[in-house]
Amino acid sequence: MLIAELAELSDTPPATVKYYVREGLLPAGARERGNRTSYDESHVHRLRLIRAMLEVGKLSVSSVAAVLAALDDQTTTIGETFAVAQNALSRDAVSTVSEPSPESIARVDALVERVGWPPCGDNVGVRIVAQTIDGFAKAGHPLADDYLDRYAEAAAVVAKADLDAVTPGAPGTDDEADLTELMVVGTVLGDTLSLGLRRIAQATLTAERNL
Amino acid sequence: MLIAELAELSDTPPATVKYYVREGLLPAGARERGNRTSYDESHVHRLRLIRAMLEVGKLSVSSVAAVLAALDDQTTTIGETFAVAQNALSRDAVSTVSEPSPESIARVDALVERVGWPPCGDNVGVRIVAQTIDGFAKAGHPLADDYLDRYAEAAAVVAKADLDAVTPGAPGTDDEADLTELMVVGTVLGDTLSLGLRRIAQATLTAERNL
Repeated sequence: MLIAELAELSDTPPATVKYYVREGLLPAGARERGNRTSYDESHVHRLRLIRAMLEVGKLSVSSVAAVLAALDDQTTTIGETFAVAQNALSRDAVSTVSEPSPESIARVDALVERVGWPPCGDNVGVRIVAQTIDGFAKAGHPLADDYLDRYAEAAAVVAKADLDAVTPGAPGTDDEADLTELMVVGTVLGDTLSLGLRRIAQATLTAERNL
Repeated sequence: MLIAELAELSDTPPATVKYYVREGLLPAGARERGNRTSYDESHVHRLRLIRAMLEVGKLSVSSVAAVLAALDDQTTTIGETFAVAQNALSRDAVSTVSEPSPESIARVDALVERVGWPPCGDNVGVRIVAQTIDGFAKAGHPLADDYLDRYAEAAAVVAKADLDAVTPGAPGTDDEADLTELMVVGTVLGDTLSLGLRRIAQATLTAERNL
């Protein structure tokens, strides 16, 4: 198809399509005779993914580029691809201003042991959680273990839903490329889904308790 | 205290303190004789809150200003303050590019009814969740109801931990201003805490399932 049709199918203006190609987010189309460029179904697919990450996932263009590189990298296992996607997708959540304190890292390790998870090594989540524990303390509201435990309990529920959706043979996933893509989409959008539902649940409980 | 002492106590350079005053994040100090300005404990407290929101919450300076305005606004109930804080703190999560589809709004309403929550009206979470449902569909991976239900279940666990922490009489909260502040801190940092723990839980499950 030509760029006009691609633009219509993907609801993306031609100038934006060209911008994504320049930025390396979208593979260039095939050069045809008469200086025309043709695109195929894979471009429509990729454009949908890019727009979801930019508009709903709120990623920057450079973060989207990093995620797509992870997606296109033919790593072997789902676990490895997950780890790459997690790192690429967690940049905005990781503070580069300060290192997490050793005390908070130790609290994350203790939490992981308390809830019965295996040691999580250098998972990016350790750094994020430790920095958040530091953030609560710096703001004058140190976190209780009980609060952390309940958040971990919720995270286990959410992660199980995520993994069930990307386990091979899960309904709606045709092939491995599809599963990998769902992993990336789910990693970005799942955070936003949690955030939104947390707002609704907070309002519900506030009303129930007449606060 | 003078600005040098405030800077040391709050781990914030004097130039940054002055910048926060200019931007309206921090109340100006009191003018003393000899053209000196003095600050008190409330400035130390407020600076800690500002830095937590900027560094760990990753809010922009203008978002921090909006949150602090909500915090200083003497609204009457915890529920109202929560709603104001939620709105101020959800700006980065709400897409302004497109309105959520009516179908997705209807799915959020159906979800809320299915999990037994009261109707949530114009809570900002409805818009966020509906946009996320649209995002998954646009990316070519429409969400199943079961996935939404499990995320809602997790959100209920997290929100209960949040509300237990800000219910008057909760341990570690001295007065109402403290509770309100914890609500704001928890709204920002709780999202990041969830995100980090989700990463760890995903890695745990991926390893357990040998994926």
